[in-house]
Amino acid sequence: MNSLLVLNIGSLVTNDPGRGGLIGIVESGAVVIIDGFVAWVGPEVDVPAEYGDLPRLDAGGAAVLPGFVDPHTHLVFAGDRSDEFARRLRGESYEEILAAGGGILSTVEATRATPQDELYEASAERVWRMLANGTTTVEVKSGYGLDVATEEKMLRVARRLDESLPMDVVPTFLGAHVVPAEYREDRDAYVDLVCGEMLDACAPLARFCDVFSDEAAFTVDETRRILEAAKSRGLGIRIHADQLGRVGAADLAADLSADSADHLDHATEEDLASMKDAGTSAVLLPAVSFSMRLPYPDGRRVWDSGVTVALATDCNPGTANVESMLFVIALAALNMGLTPDEAVWAATRGSARSLNLEDRGHLTRGAVADLVILDAPTHLHIPYRPDSDLIAAVVKRGVIL
Amino acid sequence: MNSLLVLNIGSLVTNDPGRGGLIGIVESGAVVIIDGFVAWVGPEVDVPAEYGDLPRLDAGGAAVLPGFVDPHTHLVFAGDRSDEFARRLRGESYEEILAAGGGILSTVEATRATPQDELYEASAERVWRMLANGTTTVEVKSGYGLDVATEEKMLRVARRLDESLPMDVVPTFLGAHVVPAEYREDRDAYVDLVCGEMLDACAPLARFCDVFSDEAAFTVDETRRILEAAKSRGLGIRIHADQLGRVGAADLAADLSADSADHLDHATEEDLASMKDAGTSAVLLPAVSFSMRLPYPDGRRVWDSGVTVALATDCNPGTANVESMLFVIALAALNMGLTPDEAVWAATRGSARSLNLEDRGHLTRGAVADLVILDAPTHLHIPYRPDSDLIAAVVKRGVIL
Repeated sequence: MNSLLVLNIGSLVTNDPGRGGLIGIVESGAVVIIDGFVAWVGPEVDVPAEYGDLPRLDAGGAAVLPGFVDPHTHLVFAGDRSDEFARRLRGESYEEILAAGGGILSTVEATRATPQDELYEASAERVWRMLANGTTTVEVKSGYGLDVATEEKMLRVARRLDESLPMDVVPTFLGAHVVPAEYREDRDAYVDLVCGEMLDACAPLARFCDVFSDEAAFTVDETRRILEAAKSRGLGIRIHADQLGRVGAADLAADLSADSADHLDHATEEDLASMKDAGTSAVLLPAVSFSMRLPYPDGRRVWDSGVTVALATDCNPGTANVESMLFVIALAALNMGLTPDEAVWAATRGSARSLNLEDRGHLTRGAVADLVILDAPTHLHIPYRPDSDLIAAVVKRGVIL
Repeated sequence: MNSLLVLNIGSLVTNDPGRGGLIGIVESGAVVIIDGFVAWVGPEVDVPAEYGDLPRLDAGGAAVLPGFVDPHTHLVFAGDRSDEFARRLRGESYEEILAAGGGILSTVEATRATPQDELYEASAERVWRMLANGTTTVEVKSGYGLDVATEEKMLRVARRLDESLPMDVVPTFLGAHVVPAEYREDRDAYVDLVCGEMLDACAPLARFCDVFSDEAAFTVDETRRILEAAKSRGLGIRIHADQLGRVGAADLAADLSADSADHLDHATEEDLASMKDAGTSAVLLPAVSFSMRLPYPDGRRVWDSGVTVALATDCNPGTANVESMLFVIALAALNMGLTPDEAVWAATRGSARSLNLEDRGHLTRGAVADLVILDAPTHLHIPYRPDSDLIAAVVKRGVIL
């Protein structure tokens, strides 16, 4: 049963520009869902009579929003790095931990050693918690394999998550996450592997290709080579860009017409202008700043540049073990200079756009019927009550979860 | 049924100094609960045979901690200030909002206008959410009445919460929260009212008396007068001290042998030394800094002064609409310079001590059997996964909630 009349909505966020304001709020609204898609949206008093017999979902006067879209996660991983996290709280730097063979390479080791079924089970728990927090579409990256077999295993897990759970999972190949230990003396050979055998195996399983282009990872030249190879196989492009320093990755993203450049802590006005012209979205990741105690990127500046802004958890075992887009919206409104309206838009419409998904992130006729009912009268409660479980119900493609 | 054998505990935080380290961790531990009190604690292999027939609670290899004690809340309130919160995100200051009749006075208006039963229902929802987040003892202040009838109403609600829910509620009279609008031109008359008729009505319903002693609230002289009156009626003493500026309130707390001085953003080394000598605990409130985007008080400095450090949510509708001690522990470890061990200790043993409750906040023989089972292998996951629901189960006085 995936047809519903959702009514008694106090404050309905549609993201429909035709309804005024950034997020197109309808007061006392209703949503009609037929066969998993939005068929009608408007004030409840105007619901057409033909929908009167549909099964009803009473929102109890609460706020209803489009389901959240999380466009940047590393949620398929094995292992536990809470000890390392505590060490970092005592003052050890990421670079020190990396240099000592900890950090991301310990996750690579654990992920390689974990059988596919077990990796699926651990990842499925995360996906269920994300669904409980209102996320209905999630991007998932590989990148903890760094060998052909494990990269492929991670993407197969992502596909199984998509097929087995009521979450739309968008898979991204990130073979170029970091240079693995065994190639440290021969980076070129690793880039060859990524562009060749690894892409052969992984491109059929992925929708996007991403590269971590930064001081501690891949150079801009290496990034360009990998992404051009991916593009020629039909993959969309994302880049971990200019997180630790400005290496020119945001500019490269624009040059390649990437779908997104992510992080962007050190991107300049010129970089943002190029991204805007190229239609490249900016994916901001405030939970990394929170967990790593780093300055937050200036979301206000990014928004004002005219670029499409998206928000994501960056869910990963090292720098942001965070799963809830509610928390990410709160952080963005509190610490990145976005208004609550902008943060909500970025976590829905902006995030969907960064994944090139025009059919979601909004509640208008024809959209995929993904929505959340809050346990709150308006979306303003998301930053106002930053540690609360604010999700009363989640509807995925017209089905109440 | 309030006798239990809790076993299969991966990492048991006892706060027993006899077990080594600050928080006395027992690996592969077990806890025996008889009639709501802890009867035995130790490694599971050593559980005495006489307890073998008790009902069992399997912790599944997870971490077990004492239930959290939240020693500073304003959870009895009516109204919703999310709009004001959004205004503040746009740059309006607390002082501007106060001066415009908003802020705390709008909560006073709403709380006065709300019938006692309705106030109880709203407050009970908050208490249930706190229980779900692992808090098993909570302090609750009056202070949104500022007239005799409403202050008394708030404390009656606190008493009913204590009697009707599986939460121990410690009531605090805070008639001197702010000078009400109707006394703005005659502060002395309000202080007279607090020391006289209001204390007459409220002292029998409260265990502590608190005063907001700060630049925007009550002077140190007014604070002393009120707290001496409260002390002579047998109430313990707490002070909202030196939050907005250093007015000498922390020093006064020490002088009066207060049980706690809270906030302490501007307390000096000398203030802390006086508090230590007087046995006055420091209650730190990191969620205020988070929600108000203010610098965090230096918890490291406070801890190193030798004062007993406690952590609290400050749950209130204006400056910290926060209910979870998990989130508070995460904030303290991330932003106040406390280690995860210290933050956990402060949220359990330290908080209990600040309320003069020696029978809880630890899991040793004779303690009240309040404990939480985490959905995590160790307490390090609290800052590591700051937005996760980490509570697998809560036991209150030996009863599984």
